[in-house]
Amino acid sequence: MPYAISPHPKRSSPYPMTTPLVEDPRIGRFPFVVEPFSEDCAGRLSWRFLGNHLLRCASLHAGAHGFGFDDMIGKRLVWVLSRLVVEMPNMPTTGQHYDIHTWVARIYRQFTDRHFAITAPDGTPYGHAFSTWALINLDSREPVDLTDSRMAGLSDVCTERPLPIAPPGRLRLTQPEALGETVASYTDLDINGHVNSIRYIEMMLDRLKDHDFAAQPVRRIEVAYSAEAYRGDRLTFYRQTATDGRQLMEIRRDDTLPVVKAAIAF
Amino acid sequence: MPYAISPHPKRSSPYPMTTPLVEDPRIGRFPFVVEPFSEDCAGRLSWRFLGNHLLRCASLHAGAHGFGFDDMIGKRLVWVLSRLVVEMPNMPTTGQHYDIHTWVARIYRQFTDRHFAITAPDGTPYGHAFSTWALINLDSREPVDLTDSRMAGLSDVCTERPLPIAPPGRLRLTQPEALGETVASYTDLDINGHVNSIRYIEMMLDRLKDHDFAAQPVRRIEVAYSAEAYRGDRLTFYRQTATDGRQLMEIRRDDTLPVVKAAIAF
Repeated sequence: MPYAISPHPKRSSPYPMTTPLVEDPRIGRFPFVVEPFSEDCAGRLSWRFLGNHLLRCASLHAGAHGFGFDDMIGKRLVWVLSRLVVEMPNMPTTGQHYDIHTWVARIYRQFTDRHFAITAPDGTPYGHAFSTWALINLDSREPVDLTDSRMAGLSDVCTERPLPIAPPGRLRLTQPEALGETVASYTDLDINGHVNSIRYIEMMLDRLKDHDFAAQPVRRIEVAYSAEAYRGDRLTFYRQTATDGRQLMEIRRDDTLPVVKAAIAF
Repeated sequence: MPYAISPHPKRSSPYPMTTPLVEDPRIGRFPFVVEPFSEDCAGRLSWRFLGNHLLRCASLHAGAHGFGFDDMIGKRLVWVLSRLVVEMPNMPTTGQHYDIHTWVARIYRQFTDRHFAITAPDGTPYGHAFSTWALINLDSREPVDLTDSRMAGLSDVCTERPLPIAPPGRLRLTQPEALGETVASYTDLDINGHVNSIRYIEMMLDRLKDHDFAAQPVRRIEVAYSAEAYRGDRLTFYRQTATDGRQLMEIRRDDTLPVVKAAIAF
């Protein structure tokens, strides 16, 4: 369990409604368009494309402010995604333009929250996303204290804006139903040799074999990442339908170590 | 077998070396950069991204000249990919810029060849690709005669340039070794509800469990598409190592109908 990190701090809940985004140099804004071959079978932007674009914008924004991958790796430090919540009441469709806005919203000792707004070019929201990251020392496997003065670049761009989606909740499967297994393979991997964070989301969606994604699109996905998986790892899938209809899911490595827990709402 | 089409016509082989690309309004040129989260585990542009970008550029180029998806679907016609060869002696890596050049290279009765060059911005080639398409009537499932005068838009942009890669060869597994199976699932699908053409390539690469992709990157992939697969279809995989070391692969639907045959060279 290479990136074991302590449980996530508590947050106040729920966030109030956001105000329209204003121009702020602390906020990164990245334009996209839904291109052919980036949609799902219903013509909506795929979760894979959206998810990886969110990670890419996080990376670009961090790099632009001196705390990106290239800045950190020289110090043997790497950003690790701990939590991801993406809520998309509307998903853009083929040919539609959208902007991803992202900013650092909060800094704890071992974690930092990064928020996202996904909007049309005129600012109308498609949805929002919330993420939590830790900065891990590759040698000690310990998280860095993000309030340390050496991380001033991070705090310089921090802006506590409200996000109009519920924060991540508790993810626990009390009566898990087994949904089969797969083996982590070459094309599942990121540049670092770990299974890509968004690929886990795809794997979980693919296990919902009876769900009609065209009629009932995914509205919200909430993921807690607790360990990495590597090529050749056997991944087993579990599911439980929550009382509110959400699909709670878990992926385990070697059928024991929890790697990912998630809740999917339609 | 919805898109059964007759065998592919013979071609002369091999093509002579190409000359440097000149500006030609018949050639589409599309700039890209290898962005974070579009690489494989060795930091090279992933086959998924490259493959789907090739299809996207084909689509954009066709659309710009009046024979794209939107132009055709009103006549109940759809382009179907029959053959794809991608040869990449060099694959661009993180942060590198590359251009995809594409043009219509030949028109047969039932097929048209579309070529691609993948180059650095200064024209230095990363690699080349070759594709063959048929235009299918959705009602009759019959291919359209592409030499018909109503397809003049296609012949107007046709330019027979040589391509410096070997044309597609014969793909036959005489002693296939079974490599397991999977079920076509939600995130495998394109907007049309078929398994994405490039996703098959990923599935095949993922079956090469012992191959060291970092040390021996894929140099050339050759695919023949003969049928579509849909969500829920059981896909079985077969492999045979050719005498020249290439991995010959086949994907069958319900373990009988050939869907895809391929050859992968390192």
